[in-house]
Amino acid sequence: MRFEELTLEGRNAVLEAFRAGKTIDRLMVQDGCGDGPIKSILREAKKQDTVVQFIKKERLDQMSQTHNHQGVIAYVAAYEYASVDDILKAARDKQEEPFIFLLDGIEDPHNLGAIIRTANLAGAHGVIIPKRRAAGLTSTVARTSAGALNYTPVAKVTNLTATMEELKDKGIWFVCGDMGGERMYDCNLKGPIGLVIGNEGEGVSRLVKEHCDIIASIPMKGDIDSLNASVAAGVLAYEIVRQRTQLS
Amino acid sequence: MRFEELTLEGRNAVLEAFRAGKTIDRLMVQDGCGDGPIKSILREAKKQDTVVQFIKKERLDQMSQTHNHQGVIAYVAAYEYASVDDILKAARDKQEEPFIFLLDGIEDPHNLGAIIRTANLAGAHGVIIPKRRAAGLTSTVARTSAGALNYTPVAKVTNLTATMEELKDKGIWFVCGDMGGERMYDCNLKGPIGLVIGNEGEGVSRLVKEHCDIIASIPMKGDIDSLNASVAAGVLAYEIVRQRTQLS
Repeated sequence: MRFEELTLEGRNAVLEAFRAGKTIDRLMVQDGCGDGPIKSILREAKKQDTVVQFIKKERLDQMSQTHNHQGVIAYVAAYEYASVDDILKAARDKQEEPFIFLLDGIEDPHNLGAIIRTANLAGAHGVIIPKRRAAGLTSTVARTSAGALNYTPVAKVTNLTATMEELKDKGIWFVCGDMGGERMYDCNLKGPIGLVIGNEGEGVSRLVKEHCDIIASIPMKGDIDSLNASVAAGVLAYEIVRQRTQLS
Repeated sequence: MRFEELTLEGRNAVLEAFRAGKTIDRLMVQDGCGDGPIKSILREAKKQDTVVQFIKKERLDQMSQTHNHQGVIAYVAAYEYASVDDILKAARDKQEEPFIFLLDGIEDPHNLGAIIRTANLAGAHGVIIPKRRAAGLTSTVARTSAGALNYTPVAKVTNLTATMEELKDKGIWFVCGDMGGERMYDCNLKGPIGLVIGNEGEGVSRLVKEHCDIIASIPMKGDIDSLNASVAAGVLAYEIVRQRTQLS
């Protein structure tokens, strides 16, 4: 596992990374480029379901550090992603009921790092993030996770709601933190659970919310709208911890 | 109230700011400078108990944006500070028992902003920060507070433990979040309360901890040391909210 962010430029470097099985968080290809090597790269990207952006040459030139990008720049994940099965296995190994964080589009790497840190300390078995419109495991995330990325598996999935349905079949309930639900203290948050945290600006998306079993609300007494996303995640996670560890 | 950070350079600008009653968060004076105008500035600084740093000319030159600092640079607070009495009055006005955050040396402005945001939403009546070794109310803090600085008073005090003793005389109990205490769920956190949050790296200082009535611990199940300071503040604050709003 490495901490430095890795940017690859040039056709050979990117193609080799794909073939070596590295996880490319984002691939940028020059608009209108469609020759043989680029086609091979796009084929690999499709195979691995990598997010591809076609952008203008001028923009690529600006982003390039080597000034020899040959029409392609790739961001390699700073950390290896786990699979959803790895997360379920972590729960089984500890003989605990699964406790999973699902992040519906956290964009700020500092928030993502802080949430992974919280997931670790609250005893969650892993974190699931979507492939698109979300921060990936960059070096900033690793740093702000304060080492938690070494212990807490993070899985990246193409379709968050499809993953939720698969996990529901395995007996996991989903609770999302949002306004207009039941006060979190009054919700039953025991048992195998997935905690859904919404995007910093827009909260939990409509589609994801429809797949949740419970909407839990943090009581808000103040004058402003909402807590910081990583603070909200911490508050909800520890209400789950309280209920899970309650004698009764 | 303004959002932009304000740096003043030059003797007249700084002296005028003091005389206009502005809050200077930090005053930097060139080492060895001791003529009349500088002496007047230092007199004003002493009167207002401003933090003064004497630094080398080379360093001041580097910091200067106008290149005409005349041996003095001052950082003016982006927001007006409140007094501890303002905070107590806010509780009285709402006919609530005081709920106050005390930050023992939060250094990261993003954390300070997020904590003020949490204080607002958890229904706390104000935040107390120390004058030294802590972030002040900069524009970054205002921004990350998401508007909460417009509603939640923040007081800056010279001596945190002296302030705690004064507040104890008024019937307020102090709880600090730290390891090695009782599980927060089992602590009695009802009644008039001050929640003490420690520094990002070192936690609550020994002296401040000795002035606390209760040490409350967030249960930690993970592999790493501690939560992010603003997340910990949120988790503890909402345990207080849960207990305060509990029926019985």
